[in-house]
Amino acid sequence: MNALTLTDQPAVVESAESSLGPILIIGTGLVGASVGCALTVAGEEVHLRDKVPAHAQVAAGRGAGQVEDIEPDAVALVVAAVPPRVLPEVLSAALAEFPNAVVTDVGSIKQGVLTALEREGLELRRYVGCHPMAGSHLAGPVTATPDLFIDRSWVVTPHATATPGAVETVLALGRACGARTMVMDPREHDQAVAAVSHLPHAVSAMVAAGLENRPEEHLALAGQGVRDVTRIAAGDPVLWEQILAGNALAVGRELVALGDRIRDLGERLATRGNVQELLEAGRRGTLAISGKHGMRAVDYAVATVEIPDTPGSLARLFADADDAGVNIEDISIEHDEVRHVGRLKIEILPDRAEHFVTFMRERGWLAV
Amino acid sequence: MNALTLTDQPAVVESAESSLGPILIIGTGLVGASVGCALTVAGEEVHLRDKVPAHAQVAAGRGAGQVEDIEPDAVALVVAAVPPRVLPEVLSAALAEFPNAVVTDVGSIKQGVLTALEREGLELRRYVGCHPMAGSHLAGPVTATPDLFIDRSWVVTPHATATPGAVETVLALGRACGARTMVMDPREHDQAVAAVSHLPHAVSAMVAAGLENRPEEHLALAGQGVRDVTRIAAGDPVLWEQILAGNALAVGRELVALGDRIRDLGERLATRGNVQELLEAGRRGTLAISGKHGMRAVDYAVATVEIPDTPGSLARLFADADDAGVNIEDISIEHDEVRHVGRLKIEILPDRAEHFVTFMRERGWLAV
Repeated sequence: MNALTLTDQPAVVESAESSLGPILIIGTGLVGASVGCALTVAGEEVHLRDKVPAHAQVAAGRGAGQVEDIEPDAVALVVAAVPPRVLPEVLSAALAEFPNAVVTDVGSIKQGVLTALEREGLELRRYVGCHPMAGSHLAGPVTATPDLFIDRSWVVTPHATATPGAVETVLALGRACGARTMVMDPREHDQAVAAVSHLPHAVSAMVAAGLENRPEEHLALAGQGVRDVTRIAAGDPVLWEQILAGNALAVGRELVALGDRIRDLGERLATRGNVQELLEAGRRGTLAISGKHGMRAVDYAVATVEIPDTPGSLARLFADADDAGVNIEDISIEHDEVRHVGRLKIEILPDRAEHFVTFMRERGWLAV
Repeated sequence: MNALTLTDQPAVVESAESSLGPILIIGTGLVGASVGCALTVAGEEVHLRDKVPAHAQVAAGRGAGQVEDIEPDAVALVVAAVPPRVLPEVLSAALAEFPNAVVTDVGSIKQGVLTALEREGLELRRYVGCHPMAGSHLAGPVTATPDLFIDRSWVVTPHATATPGAVETVLALGRACGARTMVMDPREHDQAVAAVSHLPHAVSAMVAAGLENRPEEHLALAGQGVRDVTRIAAGDPVLWEQILAGNALAVGRELVALGDRIRDLGERLATRGNVQELLEAGRRGTLAISGKHGMRAVDYAVATVEIPDTPGSLARLFADADDAGVNIEDISIEHDEVRHVGRLKIEILPDRAEHFVTFMRERGWLAV
């Protein structure tokens, strides 16, 4: 085993593993470029390719790897990070061009791509798909970061003819990026993401579509709830059509099941039936995902401090908050467009809240 | 006109108006107690009543008013802030008990309550409903705050037999709480909230209900999108059954229309039809509400700065950010549970982003 070059970011490397490289990343959007950054930090040799060469250049500038060509026979691992629609053709070409490489992709649908490759009659011993559960509303290599995958789930989806070595390489790829790897059947993966990702996106878009062309004064009544429900509907329609179409069977099943629940709710409303029961199921469902995935389970108290719209007010506010000696767990800003002030919401441990508010008031802040 | 006692919170009082009081608030949950706080700050005489006297006591302790009895003939305005199911009976009793008072309620359904009162054959000249579009995931008088309604919409819903004076009193109530008042027909109000509040809640709950009883490893793939879509499904099922049932007709219409859109999407997926078109409509719908209601329309750049988990780091960070001379538009914190660091996301004007990041790096921060 080659020893890894240790970096000052130890969390990225869970344990010293043998080198994965040289690695070629095809497609340098946010995910591809971030994989490159993470692997570069982990000491791997990474090469970048994009059908828009300028994108690969930007990714290289972000520390994702080098744009120089590499001898095809020397490539040990290919990571395809391209949109779903072109994925089968990119993977097929990569298997032919790099005869000694394990080939993987980071697309969000697994069985559809595998089926497309199988239909071509390709020999798929060196192909194993995977899906890092990370992303951002930001897109493109400019926003790439080596820690995009740290502590995120990274699903590896082996198929029957993949070699154990290829599976192990793709698992090692996920670990090298700092993710928590898990193995799942490709079809089961697609069912899971249909429920926890594709259906919510589709429904968010359909609820949002119902807001189009509403009278202005109706929209004026929109609060935080509908904003939360429809936020992801702002996602790229071109990309999301490809995702939904690529997982049409599983998404279709989820849509039918949701349609049944909605019809049930409608009938209960019309007949004064038990609606609470359905809402209780919803509450249990949302609690089922709320403590997961590195999210916090603790309930913090929220203190609110008004921020005058004057230079340096935030800096003074945090200096005073620091003097108060409480640990700030989270912060957010609310804007008041009429009074031209912001309000800073500060989450702190509940038993420190009263002390904090009193302290800030003594320092002259409008705090509640 | 009586001159108002001016306070040091001038935004709560838009202009000197004649006194509304004495005012009786029935029901001292978050909304009722917050109305009491806002009116007390505005110099009004506020009395509190709750079927659980301890709640009224807590609200009084938060500055919402006094719990002492008041002579029924002396009450000028009654604000009912009780759950939808008991609202008609509370309003009916209030109209009888306080013969000289304008009576209003702050419930989230308007036509259903009005119809229930009309069915009783009551004389409704002194009743005018309203609906402040504010609330919180927090509940109960402990979380009451006088600025809950500042800059929020406050819908007043007059009916045919209400006197102009009663309508004006309820408009003045909204203004005294710092809200932006608007007048709307009760039926139209119910249609509007069915679309922008009740349907999103119902759908969020039905999507969340589909997550119940899923295998753990499927739920492990849940990301931010499904969390946003299902967040409001955690709301109180008892209260929400009352809201949905109270607006069953309008909510039913919205559910049917949504069901049609979902069926259309399912059919297009099954027949490889144009899905992008539907997603584009969703994007337009979500953009239609995004610039509204005090929300921003500008796209800011996001700079990310790592916050070491050491005392005072936020204060130092903001002091340096202040020195950078950029205007901070918004901030949020991301937590990294593995590396035990937080990352502060700072929104700034795009043309200042590069300068800001460079400046912070020079000061020794890990900034991108």
